Amino acid sequence: MKKYKIAFLGAGNIARVMAATISQMPQIEAYAVAARDFSRAKAFAAAHGFQKAFGSYEEMLKDPQIDLVYISTPHSHHYEHAMLCLEHGKKVLCEKAFTANAKQAQKLLTYAKSRRLLITEAIWTRYMPLSKKINQLIDNGIIGKVTLLTANLGYMETNIERVMNPDLAGGALLDISIYPINFASMVFGPQISKVTSTCVFTDTGVDAMDSITLCYEDGKMAVLNTTILSRTNREGIIYGDQGYMVVENINNPERVRIFSADQKEIAVYEAPEKITGYEYEVLAAIGAIEEGRLECAEMPHHETLRVMKLLDGIRESWGIKFPFE
Amino acid sequence: MKKYKIAFLGAGNIARVMAATISQMPQIEAYAVAARDFSRAKAFAAAHGFQKAFGSYEEMLKDPQIDLVYISTPHSHHYEHAMLCLEHGKKVLCEKAFTANAKQAQKLLTYAKSRRLLITEAIWTRYMPLSKKINQLIDNGIIGKVTLLTANLGYMETNIERVMNPDLAGGALLDISIYPINFASMVFGPQISKVTSTCVFTDTGVDAMDSITLCYEDGKMAVLNTTILSRTNREGIIYGDQGYMVVENINNPERVRIFSADQKEIAVYEAPEKITGYEYEVLAAIGAIEEGRLECAEMPHHETLRVMKLLDGIRESWGIKFPFE
Repeated sequence: MKKYKIAFLGAGNIARVMAATISQMPQIEAYAVAARDFSRAKAFAAAHGFQKAFGSYEEMLKDPQIDLVYISTPHSHHYEHAMLCLEHGKKVLCEKAFTANAKQAQKLLTYAKSRRLLITEAIWTRYMPLSKKINQLIDNGIIGKVTLLTANLGYMETNIERVMNPDLAGGALLDISIYPINFASMVFGPQISKVTSTCVFTDTGVDAMDSITLCYEDGKMAVLNTTILSRTNREGIIYGDQGYMVVENINNPERVRIFSADQKEIAVYEAPEKITGYEYEVLAAIGAIEEGRLECAEMPHHETLRVMKLLDGIRESWGIKFPFE
Repeated sequence: MKKYKIAFLGAGNIARVMAATISQMPQIEAYAVAARDFSRAKAFAAAHGFQKAFGSYEEMLKDPQIDLVYISTPHSHHYEHAMLCLEHGKKVLCEKAFTANAKQAQKLLTYAKSRRLLITEAIWTRYMPLSKKINQLIDNGIIGKVTLLTANLGYMETNIERVMNPDLAGGALLDISIYPINFASMVFGPQISKVTSTCVFTDTGVDAMDSITLCYEDGKMAVLNTTILSRTNREGIIYGDQGYMVVENINNPERVRIFSADQKEIAVYEAPEKITGYEYEVLAAIGAIEEGRLECAEMPHHETLRVMKLLDGIRESWGIKFPFE
């Protein structure tokens, strides 16, 4: 079995979780890590068993042995960093939000295609087995005709610079709302007929609490809400005329509970045993590489672009423009 | 102890629940019931131990012994029926929605005041002890600084004429959304700065699924959704920076569960033993009568009017005008 040499661009919290994940994946070799601060990269490499550490992204990207780069810098910088990878001929797994706006996403996707390089958005929920199971259960009619979906997600993030700072494309939308939006997209598909939304702002001018309602061409409705001011119960609920389905933790689905129309629990489906949940996006990326594909079926480029356009539209309706835009 | 003679105007499903309730209230005497169809009134009286049955509302309202009239006809007819009661000098407990629109509500309240007659909206959740407990818990800081609230409610109502027919002021808004709106009002108060909403229509032109988000002057947000196409889990959740509170069944709160910010259940409060929950609004009404008050503190006239204006505004934004308006 070929071991894929992965390089990390960024050495923050998410990178640590990803490092812990790949350390348990026999297909992946923790190869290189780069951070602007070399001592930080060195410490990260030592802590997580990476062969090489770099204080410059460019330096790292010159290394011909890298099979895949995982980008986990703030999303304000994804465009720049992913483009840098592509220019160095590297395949990319880029954290969500894929970019700060759709224009950046379009440029990246077009350039990646021209270079015949894989690039895919590391929106982990899209790659999870339980996400697929949810659609199977609905298709099998377990809760009847489905018409409504709700999802919430919230974390205390007021002390996180990346989230509070408009210069870093901060706010709940790109950091958190992207999850319920992807949840709705996985279950109800792309045919949105109307978007209605509102938000509450922080003192720093980013969105702190979002309420987003998507109406669909087939008459369905998705009511989504998020906050950076508190933890929420993170539930996604899908309602049908024969019952409803509660997804525990839409951000990393652990369990799906099925209730009858009279609110009795009738079935429970657990997520299969996993490392952290990050492994599925990595497996999808190397699967695509092995098959010579430029995108992953779980999160195809048109979906990444569609979600970015949706986020752009919502942001515009709130009058939020990032300073660098 | 004086026994208050109650008369029912309307003999439908809600009237049956109310009849079962007052039969267990020592303060209340099941006195009279009227329905347009006399045989229906007679059968209802026999089934629920009412002394008198009438085939005409007017006939019943001439009876000088009646202390309080409970109106449970469709809300399209509340204005007409409540006015009839007041014109006959009768005190009124009128089911929600209080009227079809704020104009009707204002007329009723003004006339009731001029006649020095009690009138109060039978929005039962407002009168329940557990509703008051929720505010006490929040005030005591059990979940820290509160910023967000969500609530949903749904019932399968596509086979109910009253709900599906625009002529009867049908739709989810007046029948169901009024509950999460009242829930938000009880917890977050009246100072709404912005209303954002959308709905999905039925083939009959009434709203089937509503999404309503209320933003408040103090920066709070309430995300509310309802449906007549499925049952929902009926939960109200209030989020603070130290944890969150789940109210089981916002329509008749049974239990309040408190969770810490790391999602551990830390306390549970049960509703006190009750008959059906309808007794609290009846007790409040007779309490007001005994004290010579014209309204109930639990749901003062200005709140009834404010909620009706809110519903009017939402309806207008959806382009829904009832045929009789």
